[in-house]
Amino acid sequence: MKEYLDYINFNSKISDLNGIISLLQWDQEVNLAIESSEGRSRQLSVLSGILHDLYLDKNYVNLLEALEINNSLTEKELKNIQLSKKDIKRKLCLSKDFVEETSLAISYSYNAWEEARKANNFKLFSPHLTKLIELKKREAKFINPNKNPYDVLLEEYEPEVNSNEIKIIFEDLKPYLKELILNINKRNKIDISVTNKFFEKNKQWQFGIDILKQIGFNFNSGRQDISVHPFTINIGEKDIRLTTRIQENDLNEMIWSCLHEGGHALYEQGLQHNKNGLPESEASSLSIHESQSRLWENHIGRSLSFWKHNYKKLQNIFPENLSDINLNDFYKIINSISPGLIRTNSDELTYHFHIIIRFEIEILLFNNEISVEELPSIWNNLYYKYLGIKAQDDNSGILQDVHWAHGSFGYFPTYTLGSLYSAQFFEHAKRKIIHLNEKIETGDYHELSTWLNENIYKKGRLLSSSEICKNATGEYLNPQYFINYAKQKFGEIYAI
Amino acid sequence: MKEYLDYINFNSKISDLNGIISLLQWDQEVNLAIESSEGRSRQLSVLSGILHDLYLDKNYVNLLEALEINNSLTEKELKNIQLSKKDIKRKLCLSKDFVEETSLAISYSYNAWEEARKANNFKLFSPHLTKLIELKKREAKFINPNKNPYDVLLEEYEPEVNSNEIKIIFEDLKPYLKELILNINKRNKIDISVTNKFFEKNKQWQFGIDILKQIGFNFNSGRQDISVHPFTINIGEKDIRLTTRIQENDLNEMIWSCLHEGGHALYEQGLQHNKNGLPESEASSLSIHESQSRLWENHIGRSLSFWKHNYKKLQNIFPENLSDINLNDFYKIINSISPGLIRTNSDELTYHFHIIIRFEIEILLFNNEISVEELPSIWNNLYYKYLGIKAQDDNSGILQDVHWAHGSFGYFPTYTLGSLYSAQFFEHAKRKIIHLNEKIETGDYHELSTWLNENIYKKGRLLSSSEICKNATGEYLNPQYFINYAKQKFGEIYAI
Repeated sequence: MKEYLDYINFNSKISDLNGIISLLQWDQEVNLAIESSEGRSRQLSVLSGILHDLYLDKNYVNLLEALEINNSLTEKELKNIQLSKKDIKRKLCLSKDFVEETSLAISYSYNAWEEARKANNFKLFSPHLTKLIELKKREAKFINPNKNPYDVLLEEYEPEVNSNEIKIIFEDLKPYLKELILNINKRNKIDISVTNKFFEKNKQWQFGIDILKQIGFNFNSGRQDISVHPFTINIGEKDIRLTTRIQENDLNEMIWSCLHEGGHALYEQGLQHNKNGLPESEASSLSIHESQSRLWENHIGRSLSFWKHNYKKLQNIFPENLSDINLNDFYKIINSISPGLIRTNSDELTYHFHIIIRFEIEILLFNNEISVEELPSIWNNLYYKYLGIKAQDDNSGILQDVHWAHGSFGYFPTYTLGSLYSAQFFEHAKRKIIHLNEKIETGDYHELSTWLNENIYKKGRLLSSSEICKNATGEYLNPQYFINYAKQKFGEIYAI
Repeated sequence: MKEYLDYINFNSKISDLNGIISLLQWDQEVNLAIESSEGRSRQLSVLSGILHDLYLDKNYVNLLEALEINNSLTEKELKNIQLSKKDIKRKLCLSKDFVEETSLAISYSYNAWEEARKANNFKLFSPHLTKLIELKKREAKFINPNKNPYDVLLEEYEPEVNSNEIKIIFEDLKPYLKELILNINKRNKIDISVTNKFFEKNKQWQFGIDILKQIGFNFNSGRQDISVHPFTINIGEKDIRLTTRIQENDLNEMIWSCLHEGGHALYEQGLQHNKNGLPESEASSLSIHESQSRLWENHIGRSLSFWKHNYKKLQNIFPENLSDINLNDFYKIINSISPGLIRTNSDELTYHFHIIIRFEIEILLFNNEISVEELPSIWNNLYYKYLGIKAQDDNSGILQDVHWAHGSFGYFPTYTLGSLYSAQFFEHAKRKIIHLNEKIETGDYHELSTWLNENIYKKGRLLSSSEICKNATGEYLNPQYFINYAKQKFGEIYAI
């Protein structure tokens, strides 16, 4: 049908421009020299404005409205149209000027965050953060003046859930986590000092690449690079890129960021089997995205089965550090539970308190209950309350993550939701796939990939998070899967 | 004045989009995975169309016309306006569809060229080349149906010169070159085998970076990477990038491409001291651009003075290969004259026959006297005629350069013009700067940079090639400077 083809072509153009913006951002974080940043900020702003013009194109809106009532569409086609229309409705609330201003502010803010990290000084970043929060509050008001602004922002990442529902889930989770961590703290601490020996950068890099190949990342349609903060991004059709970071005195950084981002990247490569540019080729939500990163990072990457296949290789690369550590000890080391200051380096249990802290702070900020200047002290109070520790400096505290510098508020809670989904998905995959652990022990992910593809990748955005979950597991999100998983795994490791 | 400010803002937007297109191209040649190329081609085409719409914007044309007759403009401002109007006049001849089609064809052609090189098979590339030549003939006809199409294309790179004038210069040059090469051939061949020993990649890379820093490339506003064919590109304000290639069995590749592209990159960084996006911050012409690359590659990089400062360092990096070779021998080795198949690896004299061959072929192609299918045999005949050698395969013959794959016809002759300019510029710089050679011996380029800045960089495109030459040296392009330079230098080296 001609109209639907027009719609596909229009979307392809939108998707091409979105991809170019992604390239500008990727390049900003991976390649850009220090003095080039101002010009780049302008380029991002100009192109965001041009893209916004496309979204606001009357012909496109009319096309969508005509197609929405056209009854010769298939169910899938209609769903694409409805989702595109939903996106446009949100875009129509924002003026081109506002979009350009926000784009510019985000670029400046990102640059300031990088500078602030170099100087280990939050004060260099805080005026930009204040500005971004103010812009995001305005944005929320433009989109829906009658709704809690934080919930309006949350919708972009997690369309179906509001902050109250997240609060309830988090409150439910807290006592289980607290109790488990309390029991673990009664046991002997695991000595993890071996992971802080010297691990040469190039060797780490190559091991990371090998792992990505092993889990199925296709380097013919993507690449990995180094950046300050690891991320995964869709640059265009068959061009999915992930980044990692490497510390020579901490083996953890590279391994967990490769597996985490690798999970995101497999999802993005899987989505691309659908028609490019349409909602069917987009992620369902951020929590589903995070379920994929957490599944590969934790349920596979931190499993004994995975290391049965990979530990010998790692030992051969770093015999000077690892030849005295046997597989079981290594498994315990990478699963040691201990509160730390850095979210991305934290264990599977204390991780969620990092998220809960961010979530509580975001709520306070968007309810106008605190100012940006108070953040470092509020940060420390909450870290002391939940984890019993305090940041010694800004880099290991308030400056550690890039999300706020990108203007992403409402993003953090999706990490915990993602973890909960991942436990539920993985349990059901295990029930469906005979001897899955044994297959992981041989590096064979064939059936798991098929399961993920059928149940998650293929659905794109045509199913919501909870629909995907119900379809794949027979029930809606149920945190009990995560709790059972955590109790069993850490019960064994710590002999509780 | 408000109108002039509007002009600046409009140009800034055009320049931002041009920079984004450059990033897409840079990334295509530096980073892109094999399956990502089709999506990238589409992105380039979409953005080229959007940019073309901007050029064709009636408001912009009206603005330029109003400003052109506004007598409150300074001379410099007026010149900017006139040049922008000249650009627009050319753009107005082309439809958006045609621009998008050409962009797409160029991307496909570039990808096919890369594939053809991998397979060492011209046949994989020839249909794309045929298509591009056909498109370029149409383009020339759109722009000026009454002029020789090759001359129309040449104008884009070298606004003032036509193919007949170039022919005359080349015919003048030929006998001098032939005689000099003939005399050299009577002397003993210089043994250059040492440059084909094993030179470890990372060590070469670091030496290249050090040289770029030494000659003044600012890594805070640019970067160097690796690509199949070295190039320099302006990605945006204060973002100038160059690429190199490294062969572990040939030290020449990296050194000469670093210095050649380094010369281009210094020019581009110098131009950026003018107002961003206006003609005053653009290169005067390709021959002036090439004069800068050839000046640093040959007059400095292949001089004894340069290596008096740098050879010890190189020996220390590769003692296993170079400790037995003294400075004077090394100087002779890097200036050995010997006909070879690869233009970018050729010496300062035989180099020009590579250009003359390309130029003659381009004329034949655009006069419809030969077909693309005949190219490999015509190539070999001309190489045999001028250099006495024949390519053994497509990669060392017709597939060696990327220019045609980019649709750049009329580009090659500017290399020889650039060499002629560089000899004239360098001779005059030496007359102005006391003890320039001695300064180069200490790695001090301060005064030379100032001279280049004052006489070339600062002029941007506000002066034409010949005006820049006349201003800087007191006379128009005079090939005798190059001939004198070559006779003296190679006369000494070969004791002629």
